[in-house]
Amino acid sequence: MASILGVGLERIKQGEIGFEGVPLGDTIPERIDEIEIVAAFDVDEKKVGKPLSEVVKNYWQGDVVFGSDPTIRMGYADMRSQEADVDLEEVVGRLIEAYEKDEVEIFVNLITTEWAEPFEDINEVKRVIKENDVDRISPAQLYFYSVTQYERPSAFINCIPTLIANDPAMVGLAEETKTVVFGDDGASGATPLTVDILEHLRERSRKVISISQFNIGGNDDFNALQDAERNLSKEITKSSVVQDILGYDVPHFIKPTGYLEPLGDKKFVAMHIPYVSFNGAMDELIINARINDSPALAGLIVDLIRLGKMAIERENFGTVYPVNAFYMKMPGPRDARTIPKIMGFEMVRDWLNEGIDTRSWEGYEAEALYNGKA
Amino acid sequence: MASILGVGLERIKQGEIGFEGVPLGDTIPERIDEIEIVAAFDVDEKKVGKPLSEVVKNYWQGDVVFGSDPTIRMGYADMRSQEADVDLEEVVGRLIEAYEKDEVEIFVNLITTEWAEPFEDINEVKRVIKENDVDRISPAQLYFYSVTQYERPSAFINCIPTLIANDPAMVGLAEETKTVVFGDDGASGATPLTVDILEHLRERSRKVISISQFNIGGNDDFNALQDAERNLSKEITKSSVVQDILGYDVPHFIKPTGYLEPLGDKKFVAMHIPYVSFNGAMDELIINARINDSPALAGLIVDLIRLGKMAIERENFGTVYPVNAFYMKMPGPRDARTIPKIMGFEMVRDWLNEGIDTRSWEGYEAEALYNGKA
Amino acid sequence: MASILGVGLERIKQGEIGFEGVPLGDTIPERIDEIEIVAAFDVDEKKVGKPLSEVVKNYWQGDVVFGSDPTIRMGYADMRSQEADVDLEEVVGRLIEAYEKDEVEIFVNLITTEWAEPFEDINEVKRVIKENDVDRISPAQLYFYSVTQYERPSAFINCIPTLIANDPAMVGLAEETKTVVFGDDGASGATPLTVDILEHLRERSRKVISISQFNIGGNDDFNALQDAERNLSKEITKSSVVQDILGYDVPHFIKPTGYLEPLGDKKFVAMHIPYVSFNGAMDELIINARINDSPALAGLIVDLIRLGKMAIERENFGTVYPVNAFYMKMPGPRDARTIPKIMGFEMVRDWLNEGIDTRSWEGYEAEALYNGKA
Amino acid sequence: MASILGVGLERIKQGEIGFEGVPLGDTIPERIDEIEIVAAFDVDEKKVGKPLSEVVKNYWQGDVVFGSDPTIRMGYADMRSQEADVDLEEVVGRLIEAYEKDEVEIFVNLITTEWAEPFEDINEVKRVIKENDVDRISPAQLYFYSVTQYERPSAFINCIPTLIANDPAMVGLAEETKTVVFGDDGASGATPLTVDILEHLRERSRKVISISQFNIGGNDDFNALQDAERNLSKEITKSSVVQDILGYDVPHFIKPTGYLEPLGDKKFVAMHIPYVSFNGAMDELIINARINDSPALAGLIVDLIRLGKMAIERENFGTVYPVNAFYMKMPGPRDARTIPKIMGFEMVRDWLNEGIDTRSWEGYEAEALYNGKA
Repeated sequence: MASILGVGLERIKQGEIGFEGVPLGDTIPERIDEIEIVAAFDVDEKKVGKPLSEVVKNYWQGDVVFGSDPTIRMGYADMRSQEADVDLEEVVGRLIEAYEKDEVEIFVNLITTEWAEPFEDINEVKRVIKENDVDRISPAQLYFYSVTQYERPSAFINCIPTLIANDPAMVGLAEETKTVVFGDDGASGATPLTVDILEHLRERSRKVISISQFNIGGNDDFNALQDAERNLSKEITKSSVVQDILGYDVPHFIKPTGYLEPLGDKKFVAMHIPYVSFNGAMDELIINARINDSPALAGLIVDLIRLGKMAIERENFGTVYPVNAFYMKMPGPRDARTIPKIMGFEMVRDWLNEGIDTRSWEGYEAEALYNGKA
Repeated sequence: MASILGVGLERIKQGEIGFEGVPLGDTIPERIDEIEIVAAFDVDEKKVGKPLSEVVKNYWQGDVVFGSDPTIRMGYADMRSQEADVDLEEVVGRLIEAYEKDEVEIFVNLITTEWAEPFEDINEVKRVIKENDVDRISPAQLYFYSVTQYERPSAFINCIPTLIANDPAMVGLAEETKTVVFGDDGASGATPLTVDILEHLRERSRKVISISQFNIGGNDDFNALQDAERNLSKEITKSSVVQDILGYDVPHFIKPTGYLEPLGDKKFVAMHIPYVSFNGAMDELIINARINDSPALAGLIVDLIRLGKMAIERENFGTVYPVNAFYMKMPGPRDARTIPKIMGFEMVRDWLNEGIDTRSWEGYEAEALYNGKA
Repeated sequence: MASILGVGLERIKQGEIGFEGVPLGDTIPERIDEIEIVAAFDVDEKKVGKPLSEVVKNYWQGDVVFGSDPTIRMGYADMRSQEADVDLEEVVGRLIEAYEKDEVEIFVNLITTEWAEPFEDINEVKRVIKENDVDRISPAQLYFYSVTQYERPSAFINCIPTLIANDPAMVGLAEETKTVVFGDDGASGATPLTVDILEHLRERSRKVISISQFNIGGNDDFNALQDAERNLSKEITKSSVVQDILGYDVPHFIKPTGYLEPLGDKKFVAMHIPYVSFNGAMDELIINARINDSPALAGLIVDLIRLGKMAIERENFGTVYPVNAFYMKMPGPRDARTIPKIMGFEMVRDWLNEGIDTRSWEGYEAEALYNGKA
Repeated sequence: MASILGVGLERIKQGEIGFEGVPLGDTIPERIDEIEIVAAFDVDEKKVGKPLSEVVKNYWQGDVVFGSDPTIRMGYADMRSQEADVDLEEVVGRLIEAYEKDEVEIFVNLITTEWAEPFEDINEVKRVIKENDVDRISPAQLYFYSVTQYERPSAFINCIPTLIANDPAMVGLAEETKTVVFGDDGASGATPLTVDILEHLRERSRKVISISQFNIGGNDDFNALQDAERNLSKEITKSSVVQDILGYDVPHFIKPTGYLEPLGDKKFVAMHIPYVSFNGAMDELIINARINDSPALAGLIVDLIRLGKMAIERENFGTVYPVNAFYMKMPGPRDARTIPKIMGFEMVRDWLNEGIDTRSWEGYEAEALYNGKA
């Protein structure tokens, strides 16, 4: 993912490609060519210590010259149930040192899907760090914590299903520490399309009978999801959409279904949505897609990085629902619901144009806007 | 179509089915059970003179008792190039007499797709009637004209592709004569879904490569479209959407493709949309659907009849863009563009809630709303 | 399944429907209207003791009068790991008594998919019964054993994935006891189609890259497959086809994927098969289907019952590869491979026309025939 | 097409790719690396006079060095209704001169789909040439005639829908002149798959309700088919399969549906096949595919060239049904039917192994073989 993001950014800067897949393209003042990748962390020893440009070669055949080419640093591997000798405060200190050295401003969390329990209460986060409760904190949570402790006002973009923008503890911590957090789980893939199609049916009062959504792919993420616990994390993400959009629940099967190495990053998706139309007529939709996972997410991140910078400048600390509503599968804060992405896109525009005070955005208000008028 | 509309209305009244397929369901004050079918016109001699309940049996197996059961009257058959001896004013007079007798308030135009030239200028309409220029006027145009001459303020819902709400002459005539006109071409079928999917892609700046949309069915409408001229009329409707939604044109093939009698009213749709994502990645969407054509449209008409009544009460004469934007494939007036149906649905809600002055709705304002803020 | 079989047989007898879904239709001397359901076993207490015609009402809305209407008898529930007090010989004795009373000739095994270990050696079967090793024998195995001990020459049609025709112990037992066994796992559903499509690709030397085949349904069988062990049994069945047909293995995901109650007996299937064509061109096939599971299998059983009777008359005891090759997903005997169903159909015809000695049919001969000439 | 054939042949010779898409691969003695392209004809002035290797660059990006690299010669453009001053005998003479000079042995007809009337009677062909009836003869017919007049025993592979192997006049001419003719219309694309799927359904007595098969692509052939007459020629080809395979006719829509330039050579195919299964159950199959047209056909031609050489050596002059049955959409001779391609493949093997006398292959014998045993 990070490789595709890096390659795409360079190719845009060099005019080789356009703004395809970047929702806001060049319609906002923050320019794509001002984005610079200044640091990268990984826990794969085969990558650590190498320049980004070299690691990229595993995922991209073409020739790309990188403007800035950071060396991959060692990140924080999952230490839960490892009985390892770790000092969390030391780890955080080391990370912050690196952030300062590289003058990082925006953080993009792209680690492999993991299972993690939200903290709910700020004090619980603080306790875990203080008591060095290594088994209680996941890598994504630890990275986020480290960013909040980094002095510079900064933004954390959580592209995986770990609950950060949906964890009141984390959002509280962000507000306290001048941190912006966007999340959770980048809305690439088939789910945003499903959301918009369900909205399409809801507006016509068509009664959905059931929803099947199969996904199969061959990238690292699908491989990781063969692990049942990680898959559970993904499933929670994706299922919440049905009730939120339709207003009623429907038997559904929406989850990453399997791993087939030859498919690589270009997954195969199959959806089936039978529904009742007027006068009891039975209709059905079948949707198949081939979608390159990494570029779909990378294009969104190009926007999120720039929106993160804007949010810092506007001092919209904590989480920003109007951004999350479009760009995330599980838009935080926790009480906010999933809304049709087309509505979410309008919200992004409103936020861009009017600089509305995002701290007042609560779930019920979003719903009010969405259902009619606030 | 009219049969399915009649059957569905009765079954809703009798509590046999819910509001499936009726977008506004029971969320507006105008109640579905107050809709009454008081008259019906047809040009098929096998139907004329029979009660509606008997004709319905050709299209619906179940038992339905009709509250009101009008006898089918003879309508106006296409007289162009027929060298027939017709007096247009007399025809119109005869129709109006029937409207008055049956106290019709809302007219639903469901005749078979036809080819027709818009008039552009009110005076041209008047000339045609005055000079009895039978070859210049299509059945849909004549019906609409007759409704404008009917004294009672009334609404005309144009569910076929003939340009009425998109013909400045007709809209002008409507304004002059206290007539509401909704049109053109009811937005059932696959095109509204295509519109929303294209919008989904546009918001992500995905560059669409081409669009194929095949439709094949076995009802009278598909049969009629085997006639090349009629098909052309349909093709114009459906193609305008691409440029309007995406903002750029794309090679596309969007049209009724063929007739297969055994498919009956439940058509088969296949769509193919390849697009470029971030970093030049090539994705593609393939959508297949089985859709019952008549119920899809009938459900919309149940709303349009009630919205027509509201528009009469509000004296929103002429055409009403916010209604057309959601319910029609080619929303009039002529300069208005196709917008995503999800946006259109918001417009309907706005119109319902705020009673905004619809005469001021022009295409550019819709675009303003759609692209950000007016 | 049994209900649909019963209903369909009656409706054919009464001339209400034709031979749709019955491969051999009326092209063989054994007539469909001579098939009579004389007994039925179940372990569901809600069904036992009721006439078949009453149970059928849960699965079929229409009115059907049954010529013969047996009362459901209590069958043999899975006793493995139940620490129950069971005497296998007594159970078998009781079953045989019922068979004799009802003069059963052909047995159709339609119990829910189960996990079972093949015996490999006849002596092991005998030991299990003798030592009353209740934990070693599955219901399907016990039923089959009971049929071999029934004096009348008879046929056992194994429609589930338990290895019977693929277990040398069971086939040996069948030969010893004048029993015909067809199996294993009735070739309904999507797999036979996959087999024929893979053969289509193989003949053109197209190199298959990967195979995805998702199945989701709402009948009891899909519900049972939510149990991981049962699903494993199904997966083994379905995966063996790839290597057998293509001649090389390919990464594949072919298994029942989930359970969605509203789909009922009509499952949704999605397949994806990318392949390399001439000059390195990348093509792909995507297949979606809605398939009623029970009728698809029931139609095959109507043939298998009649072929079972023919096999008894011809004294083709043991298993009959030419029949299995077409009608079964895992055609026994064990060394036989899966062949394209179109080839299997030719084999059935050969067997019908020439009465070839099926005991000499070994896997390698089938392969010889299939690859060219023996 | 010719470009892809040329490129693929070179890449196989150079070991860059395998035998993907070449049905017989290296299983026959005639080796692929012995095939040499010695001449090429075209009527496009932009191509004539250039070396093949240069023209190829329009259709293939990679670098390929050609072993033999003939200069494109001017072919025979359609002269019907052109009122042009042409002397057919002179044209034929000029063509034969070129054949002799380049020592051509196998001719592959890949001209754009055209409309042509079969001759039925040898004498009519002779009359047309003698009387210089330019309006009566299509380019494909003229090319074939020229090959029959070329002294060297040779083979003509007709890859387009013009009836050559299905025209008794042409087959008779071939027999008289020591010419082998394979045809008509190379069985690439979606139709062979449709044929095998229909056979799959037929074997299970599933009653097909209707068949839709849409094809849309962006290569020259799809462009040409926008011309109604050419499309008619294609439609005739494709429709004959239904009755032949199923044994009954079914309403169907099987034809090239449109032209979308951006799809290039990789067409999009959508098929819909609803059918009745046992007990009146309604199932349906939906098949979508992306297929590179040129490579699919080119791979078949690699076989046909080698089979043509074998047929010349075996003196199987006239047409060869067992070859046509697999490789052609409309297998000649005229009375022969379309059979499932899987059966056709067996026939090719029989012909290869046993050298059966192909002149005795008549339609009824094929049917006998197909339905059971002769």
